[in-house]
Amino acid sequence: MTDVTSAATHLRDSVQYGHLWITAECREWFAEEHRLRSWLRIYAAVAEVQADLGRLPLEAAERIGEVAADTPLDLPAIAEATRRTGHSTAGLVDWLRHAVGPEAAPHVGLGVTVQDISDTWTSLTLRHTGNLVGADLRALLDALTVLADRFRATPMAARTHGQIGVPITVGFKVAQWAAECERHLDRLEEGRQRWETAPLSGSVGSLGYWGAEGPELLEAFGGCLGLAAPPLPWGSSRDAVAEFACWAQLVAGLLARIGNEVFQLQRTEIGELAEPAHPEQISSITMPHKRNPELSEHLVTLRHLVGSSAGLLLTATLVEHERDGRAWKTEWVALPDLCCALAKAARAAAELVAGLHVNTARMAENLARSGSAATSEQVVNLLAESLGRDEAFAVVRSAVARSRPGRSWLAEIDADDRVRDTGLAFDGADVGDRALASAVAFVDRWRQGRG
Amino acid sequence: MTDVTSAATHLRDSVQYGHLWITAECREWFAEEHRLRSWLRIYAAVAEVQADLGRLPLEAAERIGEVAADTPLDLPAIAEATRRTGHSTAGLVDWLRHAVGPEAAPHVGLGVTVQDISDTWTSLTLRHTGNLVGADLRALLDALTVLADRFRATPMAARTHGQIGVPITVGFKVAQWAAECERHLDRLEEGRQRWETAPLSGSVGSLGYWGAEGPELLEAFGGCLGLAAPPLPWGSSRDAVAEFACWAQLVAGLLARIGNEVFQLQRTEIGELAEPAHPEQISSITMPHKRNPELSEHLVTLRHLVGSSAGLLLTATLVEHERDGRAWKTEWVALPDLCCALAKAARAAAELVAGLHVNTARMAENLARSGSAATSEQVVNLLAESLGRDEAFAVVRSAVARSRPGRSWLAEIDADDRVRDTGLAFDGADVGDRALASAVAFVDRWRQGRG
Amino acid sequence: MTDVTSAATHLRDSVQYGHLWITAECREWFAEEHRLRSWLRIYAAVAEVQADLGRLPLEAAERIGEVAADTPLDLPAIAEATRRTGHSTAGLVDWLRHAVGPEAAPHVGLGVTVQDISDTWTSLTLRHTGNLVGADLRALLDALTVLADRFRATPMAARTHGQIGVPITVGFKVAQWAAECERHLDRLEEGRQRWETAPLSGSVGSLGYWGAEGPELLEAFGGCLGLAAPPLPWGSSRDAVAEFACWAQLVAGLLARIGNEVFQLQRTEIGELAEPAHPEQISSITMPHKRNPELSEHLVTLRHLVGSSAGLLLTATLVEHERDGRAWKTEWVALPDLCCALAKAARAAAELVAGLHVNTARMAENLARSGSAATSEQVVNLLAESLGRDEAFAVVRSAVARSRPGRSWLAEIDADDRVRDTGLAFDGADVGDRALASAVAFVDRWRQGRG
Amino acid sequence: MTDVTSAATHLRDSVQYGHLWITAECREWFAEEHRLRSWLRIYAAVAEVQADLGRLPLEAAERIGEVAADTPLDLPAIAEATRRTGHSTAGLVDWLRHAVGPEAAPHVGLGVTVQDISDTWTSLTLRHTGNLVGADLRALLDALTVLADRFRATPMAARTHGQIGVPITVGFKVAQWAAECERHLDRLEEGRQRWETAPLSGSVGSLGYWGAEGPELLEAFGGCLGLAAPPLPWGSSRDAVAEFACWAQLVAGLLARIGNEVFQLQRTEIGELAEPAHPEQISSITMPHKRNPELSEHLVTLRHLVGSSAGLLLTATLVEHERDGRAWKTEWVALPDLCCALAKAARAAAELVAGLHVNTARMAENLARSGSAATSEQVVNLLAESLGRDEAFAVVRSAVARSRPGRSWLAEIDADDRVRDTGLAFDGADVGDRALASAVAFVDRWRQGRG
Repeated sequence: MTDVTSAATHLRDSVQYGHLWITAECREWFAEEHRLRSWLRIYAAVAEVQADLGRLPLEAAERIGEVAADTPLDLPAIAEATRRTGHSTAGLVDWLRHAVGPEAAPHVGLGVTVQDISDTWTSLTLRHTGNLVGADLRALLDALTVLADRFRATPMAARTHGQIGVPITVGFKVAQWAAECERHLDRLEEGRQRWETAPLSGSVGSLGYWGAEGPELLEAFGGCLGLAAPPLPWGSSRDAVAEFACWAQLVAGLLARIGNEVFQLQRTEIGELAEPAHPEQISSITMPHKRNPELSEHLVTLRHLVGSSAGLLLTATLVEHERDGRAWKTEWVALPDLCCALAKAARAAAELVAGLHVNTARMAENLARSGSAATSEQVVNLLAESLGRDEAFAVVRSAVARSRPGRSWLAEIDADDRVRDTGLAFDGADVGDRALASAVAFVDRWRQGRG
Repeated sequence: MTDVTSAATHLRDSVQYGHLWITAECREWFAEEHRLRSWLRIYAAVAEVQADLGRLPLEAAERIGEVAADTPLDLPAIAEATRRTGHSTAGLVDWLRHAVGPEAAPHVGLGVTVQDISDTWTSLTLRHTGNLVGADLRALLDALTVLADRFRATPMAARTHGQIGVPITVGFKVAQWAAECERHLDRLEEGRQRWETAPLSGSVGSLGYWGAEGPELLEAFGGCLGLAAPPLPWGSSRDAVAEFACWAQLVAGLLARIGNEVFQLQRTEIGELAEPAHPEQISSITMPHKRNPELSEHLVTLRHLVGSSAGLLLTATLVEHERDGRAWKTEWVALPDLCCALAKAARAAAELVAGLHVNTARMAENLARSGSAATSEQVVNLLAESLGRDEAFAVVRSAVARSRPGRSWLAEIDADDRVRDTGLAFDGADVGDRALASAVAFVDRWRQGRG
Repeated sequence: MTDVTSAATHLRDSVQYGHLWITAECREWFAEEHRLRSWLRIYAAVAEVQADLGRLPLEAAERIGEVAADTPLDLPAIAEATRRTGHSTAGLVDWLRHAVGPEAAPHVGLGVTVQDISDTWTSLTLRHTGNLVGADLRALLDALTVLADRFRATPMAARTHGQIGVPITVGFKVAQWAAECERHLDRLEEGRQRWETAPLSGSVGSLGYWGAEGPELLEAFGGCLGLAAPPLPWGSSRDAVAEFACWAQLVAGLLARIGNEVFQLQRTEIGELAEPAHPEQISSITMPHKRNPELSEHLVTLRHLVGSSAGLLLTATLVEHERDGRAWKTEWVALPDLCCALAKAARAAAELVAGLHVNTARMAENLARSGSAATSEQVVNLLAESLGRDEAFAVVRSAVARSRPGRSWLAEIDADDRVRDTGLAFDGADVGDRALASAVAFVDRWRQGRG
Repeated sequence: MTDVTSAATHLRDSVQYGHLWITAECREWFAEEHRLRSWLRIYAAVAEVQADLGRLPLEAAERIGEVAADTPLDLPAIAEATRRTGHSTAGLVDWLRHAVGPEAAPHVGLGVTVQDISDTWTSLTLRHTGNLVGADLRALLDALTVLADRFRATPMAARTHGQIGVPITVGFKVAQWAAECERHLDRLEEGRQRWETAPLSGSVGSLGYWGAEGPELLEAFGGCLGLAAPPLPWGSSRDAVAEFACWAQLVAGLLARIGNEVFQLQRTEIGELAEPAHPEQISSITMPHKRNPELSEHLVTLRHLVGSSAGLLLTATLVEHERDGRAWKTEWVALPDLCCALAKAARAAAELVAGLHVNTARMAENLARSGSAATSEQVVNLLAESLGRDEAFAVVRSAVARSRPGRSWLAEIDADDRVRDTGLAFDGADVGDRALASAVAFVDRWRQGRG
């Protein structure tokens, strides 16, 4: 019996539960070791660019690049120096200066503040997370498209205010999700041009250390990391970070809506959808019969987390002057939280939809049991042509009220004098078809639009 | 002495304070009378489109259009019927049916639900508010550009963590705001294509009442109101509304940041900026000397309100099934709140910046009093070329610590043996210029980019 | 046809919809006219107290009191002066000075700032709203108690993760709501001592205008209005206001939970609960058969609003220095919003529960249809005594998997060799009773605790 | 050079930065290892109580207690089983059953769900965190009291809307914080009775597994852990957890307000307060002269985090039916986040105030430089007795407007004809004393009230 224990306090870093809160790719990206390695590479990129501009020896920049790439870190020493100096990168810079040796040491981190490093990492993180989530959204879109095609014309009850209404098709419901997913992918492409930019800004935002060469340095630095150079450094303008957070919230909103829909339609009493399950899965340790929609629920939970972190990132746009620790440090925690929850949700949603069980038998049964619900609108519609809408509405309403077990409301309608005069008969006719025709037409319209 | 009183309970509708919370244009748009008139015109547009498709007589549609345009409303009767039926539009539809007369009455509101009306009004509201706020943002951008040009090279202290750092220029600070403002205008154009769309969706989102003609009706309806027709109705996909809310939050964030900056820099002890004031203005009824930055403060307050309403609109994306009153009615309150606070903030910010006082004398004085603050980075920079960065940093740090009234830290540096060996001398030299050069270069870069 | 129109822009002040967002009592309290009247009475109370301390003539205080009580206001003039001076009370004070006549005029509002007036009104508003909501919570508690007693032992399905589990009783579910309601009433009593306090604080929070008499004035002023005098003025300590907002959120949380439970259990497919409806009520203008749980939904909507306003009030605790318009003006909007939404929710919840339909037939039917769900835990329990828990769990799980229409899972269990050896038989036995016994025992325990 | 790296992704678990986001005590409590150990002890407590009630052999309970106390965990195996079964405690229960051996195994976790374990841990966590934070708040209160006493009568400028107003005393400012701190300690004591309760609730909230013995079991279980037994289990009533979150927000609000005040008053241009610093501390790696108020800023940052987590916990009160993973799992992340940020903030605030530098010289200088600001209210006051308030206000306002370098506004007042007639003279007189008298009187009143 081993005693492997975990000192981590956050569920995301839990050995037991971490898998529920973070994907493997995010775990790798946000692990402290990897973050510090990224930071070192940013120091190396600054040095490389400065060398290109003739501000420091090429050899020094190369040496810094080598150490940044793979020299093992002495994290305890870095941490000790961080605590001792109370400065966020003093420990890391000291370690890097020592590691590159006396010749290159004076050229490490010239004119570079903590914010240059952490903001550049932020841009890289937004790019990386955008890529990860974008890929999962495309997988989700594919899975939704398969469902929309397969169940294009399969009737199911629509529900408004929790009550069964006229029918739609499964494909129509799913196509609405898919169309929204497409819009989120569009928004991602639009936003990238703003947040995948180089945020080098120096001590007070103007790259003042570099004098009139500031703009040139910014351009070169961006080029080195594959980031665009903005017209001016955006040190205290956090709108692009906040925009990413907004996008995350919108995306998480869709994912939660899908999850919640599955959760509700998987109810024992409804049973129209069911999330994928595997044989060894246990829903309840005390109630063996249960099969819980935990993946679906989790999408709602993750959306709460994304929303909460996004709120923090929006709060953090209120930067006072040229740097404001109150806002900026809020980002330090909120951005990784946001990215991890969002990426996990996108992955989970793609899995949920790819394995979704659609129980068309229960759908038909629920529609049938709902009686008037499924068709009353169409009956009003057909009657209105002869009776006018008000009387048609009144006829249907009173027929529904008179119906009882053994005698359907449609039979009651046929028995109504006003209806008899029109020559119309409803009991047994398939009045639901008309409602479905529109749903199917919209699914087709959307499919054609996708080219 | 008249006794004109107000029964309104919301500050926005207050006779005394309303002007602080809403612009005249928003007051007009969101007034109940105007909203109901808009709703009637949407009913008319539906009738017009149905007539074009041959679903109802042209005369009926014309009659509905006439009444919708200007027949005086009987609001108390509508309200009474609303309360009696518990239905959001039954009272209005009854009134409209009665007002158009018996021939047109049966053709009013066929297949149209409350949500069709309110969602279409939402799209129109987003378009209208986007137009209003866009215009004020352009006015703000113009005012910022004037300031950026005028004070392109005027030095002022940068401040990080509330402490004076090396100098920037006034133009640089203002240009960062302007560049962010430009990004918000870009986002507006991108988002419009998604939220200026026709949301007609019928009883359960599929326009089922219209059968296979649903898509055609949607196209025609959009055309009638100048709205694009989406691939599918977006009844339960609120992402476009939420995206507008996100945009509002981003915009309000910039406006609040500008307001907060003025608030802080107008402090008695700083005095570098001051918001416009007029002769009759009273800041304090007990302290006659005071001049409060109330307009600036208000931008922060309004941003809190915008953020709060935006949070509600994001919450309201979690729609269950095809319509969900819990989410939807949340929008009913939150969207007007959001639009009014945002539009007021945009107007106020444009006024603030257009009348902003820039006190360059206090800026120079504060820089001068800050001593080492303004230049220490540059001194380190210049020394580092000879001494290496670590020793340069140590020299400056100890010189700052030794300085005292009557003997500047630059004199202390010149007195340091290590410095004397380099041949450099700082006391009296203008070491701040280099920092400013970068700020100016970025302002110029941004200006050139604007073409 | 009358053309009575409404210029109000907030739904709460809408002629058509106002009733959904505010109670009559709140409409009266928060109407601008009434607020200004309250403010005038606060000026009168200050004058009265100052007169008692000999700081101004008794006649002047009496004259101020008379005018404050009922002299008709000239609201347009007050509003014009408010806009002209940009000062929140200058217009009102000018009006009051003019109205009291030249003798009393110099004694109006001595040493009193806007915040004295608005904060005192805040304390009075918290007391008033606490009274209103407290009364409705007690009505709610009474209605819940009636239900808990009446359905103390009536079985219904419990549901976890949306899935039917073992049964509870209706009374047990309701008693949990009632017990929470009791806790909210307790919290109200605890909080009152902190927020029903006199907040007079003068120009900068210390009542400095009054010199060493400050504490005495504060005591007397509190006594005059029935408010306790805190040890120090709480001008920049908004914790009591924020605490009220927290309480409102907790209360609204319960009300929304009840509303949501009714919404879900009123689903067409479940039908166990239904909110009260009246004959003329229309749920859908296009679907005559529908009966929507709109009151229940509304409780969730109102809770979103309460939560949003509470968030603003918590944000507004970050006051900078002795007064901070950014925070304070946020309160001006958020506090009435919070109070109105909370009071409306409390009223609506009391109505909902008082008229709640409990469909015990559907409850029994749903339990019966759920099969294994209702009893599997008890079967495991009974089997575990002989087989051990693991084997019992495995037996039940495989029996559930083998069951099919026409042959229940309990029959499958009885057919299991392992079970046959125990001598136990389940098919037909009432294994659900044990689960209900606990639910009933807890209802009884709670009832006894209420004395 | 060692390569010690960290795979943790949350800043709280970072080797480099963890100390900024969590205290040592919280790190210990929330570490996964410790949490699982607590969970095992809860299983042991359940077994112990069941044994006392004769539901299982005493030896089995003892054996379970021994293993729970200190048998090393096989965390990887537990985690693997957790992932395989998709059940939150199946892996842990399996491990525990195996570890206790075949005799005790069947008696592990009878009738106990995940929620029983995690909710009980939640109650214990609220108690523990309440104790930790309560202790730090008492330390903070002590430090504030020392300051209030020491600077009871030391004048400093009050500031409203960021502008200097009449003076207060340092002690008065600090006493307001202290009085609020006392209220938070009172709230803690009131809330404890609600959240330090035993939440055992079984599979669906009613302890149904135990039949009529449910209440007895709940009582005994509470007694075993030092928790009160509520009238009914509170499984789906999360109000006590949410109340703790509200309390946390209120407390964090005060701490942030103190931090923000220090941040602002430590500005280079103000310099009245300064947070403690130690010799090796580095504020800026590029600007050697700087001394940043990072601890003060951090209190605002931590308050943002607390507020965000509290928002999640309030959202999580909307539990659907008897258990709702969407809400409950939100708590799993939000509660530790809240507790860690709150406890860190309380510790940091206590340290900040204990080491706060009060620069009385700068206070006097700022008051002196503010000129009219500090005293205008008192001058109005003194003049009003002769001239009436309106004229007094006008005299002061015009004198302030006429004042210029070399000739004070008080000299201008003395030169005013209207003033000369009163016989009063202000230039040189100490008119600020009266304002201070009130501030001092309130400090004394508060101190006396503390007994």
